[in-house]
Amino acid sequence: MRETSPSIYDMGLDKNPANHVPLTPLSHIERTAFVFPDQPSVVHGGRSWVWRETLQRCRRLASALRKLGVGKNDTVSVVLNNTPEMYECHFGVPGAGAVLNTINTRLDAQTVAFILEHAEARVLITDREYAPVVSEALKLLHRPSLIVIDVDDPEYTGPGERLGRMDYEALLATGDPSEPFTLPGDEWDAISLSYTSGTTGNPKGVVYHHRGAFLGALGHNVSWGMPTHSVYLWTLPMFHCNGWVFPWVMAANAGLNVCLRQIAADAIWERIRTHRVTHYCGAPIVHKLIAEAPASLREGVTHTVKALCGGAPPPQTVLEAMEKIGFDLIQGYGLTETYGASMMSPKKPGYDDLPMVDKVMLAGRQGVPSHVLEDAAVLDPLTLEPCPLDGESMGEVMMRGNFVMKGYLKNPQATRDAFEGGWFHSGDLAVAMPDGYVKIRDRSKDIIISGGENISSIEVENAIYAHPAVNIVAVVAAPDEKWGETPAAFIELRPGMEATEEDIIRHCRDHLAGFKIPRRIIFDEIPRTSTGKIQKYMLRDRVGSLASFE
Amino acid sequence: MRETSPSIYDMGLDKNPANHVPLTPLSHIERTAFVFPDQPSVVHGGRSWVWRETLQRCRRLASALRKLGVGKNDTVSVVLNNTPEMYECHFGVPGAGAVLNTINTRLDAQTVAFILEHAEARVLITDREYAPVVSEALKLLHRPSLIVIDVDDPEYTGPGERLGRMDYEALLATGDPSEPFTLPGDEWDAISLSYTSGTTGNPKGVVYHHRGAFLGALGHNVSWGMPTHSVYLWTLPMFHCNGWVFPWVMAANAGLNVCLRQIAADAIWERIRTHRVTHYCGAPIVHKLIAEAPASLREGVTHTVKALCGGAPPPQTVLEAMEKIGFDLIQGYGLTETYGASMMSPKKPGYDDLPMVDKVMLAGRQGVPSHVLEDAAVLDPLTLEPCPLDGESMGEVMMRGNFVMKGYLKNPQATRDAFEGGWFHSGDLAVAMPDGYVKIRDRSKDIIISGGENISSIEVENAIYAHPAVNIVAVVAAPDEKWGETPAAFIELRPGMEATEEDIIRHCRDHLAGFKIPRRIIFDEIPRTSTGKIQKYMLRDRVGSLASFE
Repeated sequence: MRETSPSIYDMGLDKNPANHVPLTPLSHIERTAFVFPDQPSVVHGGRSWVWRETLQRCRRLASALRKLGVGKNDTVSVVLNNTPEMYECHFGVPGAGAVLNTINTRLDAQTVAFILEHAEARVLITDREYAPVVSEALKLLHRPSLIVIDVDDPEYTGPGERLGRMDYEALLATGDPSEPFTLPGDEWDAISLSYTSGTTGNPKGVVYHHRGAFLGALGHNVSWGMPTHSVYLWTLPMFHCNGWVFPWVMAANAGLNVCLRQIAADAIWERIRTHRVTHYCGAPIVHKLIAEAPASLREGVTHTVKALCGGAPPPQTVLEAMEKIGFDLIQGYGLTETYGASMMSPKKPGYDDLPMVDKVMLAGRQGVPSHVLEDAAVLDPLTLEPCPLDGESMGEVMMRGNFVMKGYLKNPQATRDAFEGGWFHSGDLAVAMPDGYVKIRDRSKDIIISGGENISSIEVENAIYAHPAVNIVAVVAAPDEKWGETPAAFIELRPGMEATEEDIIRHCRDHLAGFKIPRRIIFDEIPRTSTGKIQKYMLRDRVGSLASFE
Repeated sequence: MRETSPSIYDMGLDKNPANHVPLTPLSHIERTAFVFPDQPSVVHGGRSWVWRETLQRCRRLASALRKLGVGKNDTVSVVLNNTPEMYECHFGVPGAGAVLNTINTRLDAQTVAFILEHAEARVLITDREYAPVVSEALKLLHRPSLIVIDVDDPEYTGPGERLGRMDYEALLATGDPSEPFTLPGDEWDAISLSYTSGTTGNPKGVVYHHRGAFLGALGHNVSWGMPTHSVYLWTLPMFHCNGWVFPWVMAANAGLNVCLRQIAADAIWERIRTHRVTHYCGAPIVHKLIAEAPASLREGVTHTVKALCGGAPPPQTVLEAMEKIGFDLIQGYGLTETYGASMMSPKKPGYDDLPMVDKVMLAGRQGVPSHVLEDAAVLDPLTLEPCPLDGESMGEVMMRGNFVMKGYLKNPQATRDAFEGGWFHSGDLAVAMPDGYVKIRDRSKDIIISGGENISSIEVENAIYAHPAVNIVAVVAAPDEKWGETPAAFIELRPGMEATEEDIIRHCRDHLAGFKIPRRIIFDEIPRTSTGKIQKYMLRDRVGSLASFE
């Protein structure tokens, strides 16, 4: 057997410090600060920095954390907006060897306390704005050794006391900018921890590794075709899947990070104009807000802005509005478990010549794996056999590759379940189109099964969105004695416009098969998460659905 | 001690097939063929393909090789020009699990035989053009089991018999395009083998790994800021460091590969015009040929072309000529051992506003590490201490990171020497400029030591290049009884122009310190390798220098 003797390619050709270095996004900021030290790195209101300074601040943070006793595999939690401090934590915390745990700023005290406990946080860095919730969480918590650091952002003038031992700038002052980062001994080492927004049961802690963060940083530059020195507006929260890894993407890009505390149309358009923003990401609601802003806000902006939409497929009206203002919107898709938008829906050559109706159809697809996600496919959830690329056979989206989490923290059973059969199971139902692009039909739990027929809540929502008076719509399953389930639609109308239940039903008759028409129409405010995701579980509660979980 | 109990981040969070896949550039071509199946991939004369077809041809090649008994860690050698077959071998050979050994087409039969023997080649794929040398090499060789396949390129109509068992297209016909690639079990597995052009002693076989090839493919897209669907002209031989990994770069880029059998100004300009080439790489001589081509050849080309120059710093005249035709030339730098151009010299913002003299100065620097080379520095060769960034202190360029070879095949001692102290030793002498950019002064052996003073042969060459009648110049050390060494200059004059030894010496007096002026001026043809590298060892032989090695 030839295989019994070792190959010539396996002898004397081992890894050594000269030819093998663990992948880490810390390398990206080091390189950019070295090559482009004077290029703008971060701007926030009246404050701005260049890459040399941002690296120094990140190194100071790492050094200061080490002095507080933080080291390898310790958790540093943060409750922060998209401020410079949040950006710096993405390098300074892993640069101390520690793991960055970004906490959703909209959570209640109990959940924040649960996360700090479960993550075994040693340091908490928190914005003054969240003092009421955080101080409540600290009271619930049994971690007397937790060190609390306050961020007091000059751009924030609202209420909120300081809770901690010192503020962030004082902490940085204790650090030494000449101390090098602690680099990971292994690229599989944890870099961050993000809790999924589970709403019943406890949230699960998703752990990312340095390898995925390094690769994603390069990969998104290529997959999205970003030119060097792009200008990125921080509309997507960094606490959400580490902002889809864009803190690290922008370090590799040597571009400018434009910070943003709050989502507001005027603040966004002002920044797009002033800094000539080239790229941003967000949930559909963010794109809607931007695209539907009054023309006066948009004045003076003539350049093309590239936008990536995730969280949910955008309604057609938003896609059309984006086209009209000349923005180049594509879909991204993924989950917290896959570093955020691990799939993208790139436009193919010839796209610009298509009629609007085709563009809208294509832009609503979730797409294909980005460069560093090895594979994504629509599979039969039982057999794991691929569904035919026919645009009709529904299966579950599954992913595998280097852009998938290490697993859930302290939850080996959930980790094993998520990775069963060698694929990460997304829980999203989709079809594969003939060209291989994935089109999400629904979350498993968002499918409405009426008289044995599957109804896609997205299809019903898209139909209702076409009604001119509708601003936001969410469709869920309501229990029905005869049919098992029927669709129920929650609607927010556009300001100053009116529509009755009958108007909507009549409109649906023109657009939907009879069994898909909602049996109930409820006009009311629709609850949303901070990232713009509609909280359907709350709506299901209200119509008495049994499927009240997420 | 906290360190004694395992961290929460190390428990139940292991690698598995869902979250870890060995990095390989085979993933790039698979993704591109899936996402952009109908985009042009390769064009060569009258033949052209789209990515779906190129993937199928590469899979056929892998499948056909497997049927010939080729498998994991077997060597497949090729003697090929920059033809579609050569491009396909970069995927089909590793896709069979094998290692691609690209052989320089200008080598003599004895060296080719040595390489085939040393590499333990099982298959040889060879272009009909090289039949005379290859048939001679096969006679010298003791490998009766070697399977020879001929490439009979329709674009080649010159002499040369077929030597092998079948031709390349017949081989492909035996392969099954639906058979998936054999993927590496480990990203450290060998992907290719390139022999350095050592000229005394035997050449050394440089082994690359899948990891470096995957990373370089993404990294060069980012480091060079390449837009998706770039058009790459194959001026740089793919047998040279796998064309600086650009076969894999272009697969990740989903761009078009424009093939080219021979370097000729008319063929190059015709392709730039027809295919709207956006990028190409080459040695200084290639850029010179392009930039100095008659204006009639350039007609109709108005777009900007990006060019990467490696092999040696280009003379100032070439840099100026490139500027004049509006090409965007930057320096690349590296060695066979570092996947080719592992360093680049990116332009900083504001560059375009500089006076020409500053641009030329900046463009002649070798630059900084690309995104996937962790580190490159000018170090004291004895202490490995970094030289100050003062533009004056000379040291040796050393590199380390994931863009460095596995080592030399069957040569553990040379491998250990090359990696001594945790750095790859380039053998090139350089200074680090105040902004950190590396500026090569000379190859160690190209430094002329005259009366204890170091003379940079590059400095002397640049001075002589400024003489209007000089086309090519090469300066080497000639032995001298009094001074030890003095510079000797070999000069090729521009066609139709004249200059005497006295003219050159007088010119040098205006540009160089007295001790740097060549003591001998020889007007003669200057020997060059196929990549345009001047073969200084031959010149040293001619002046009786002892330092006759490379």
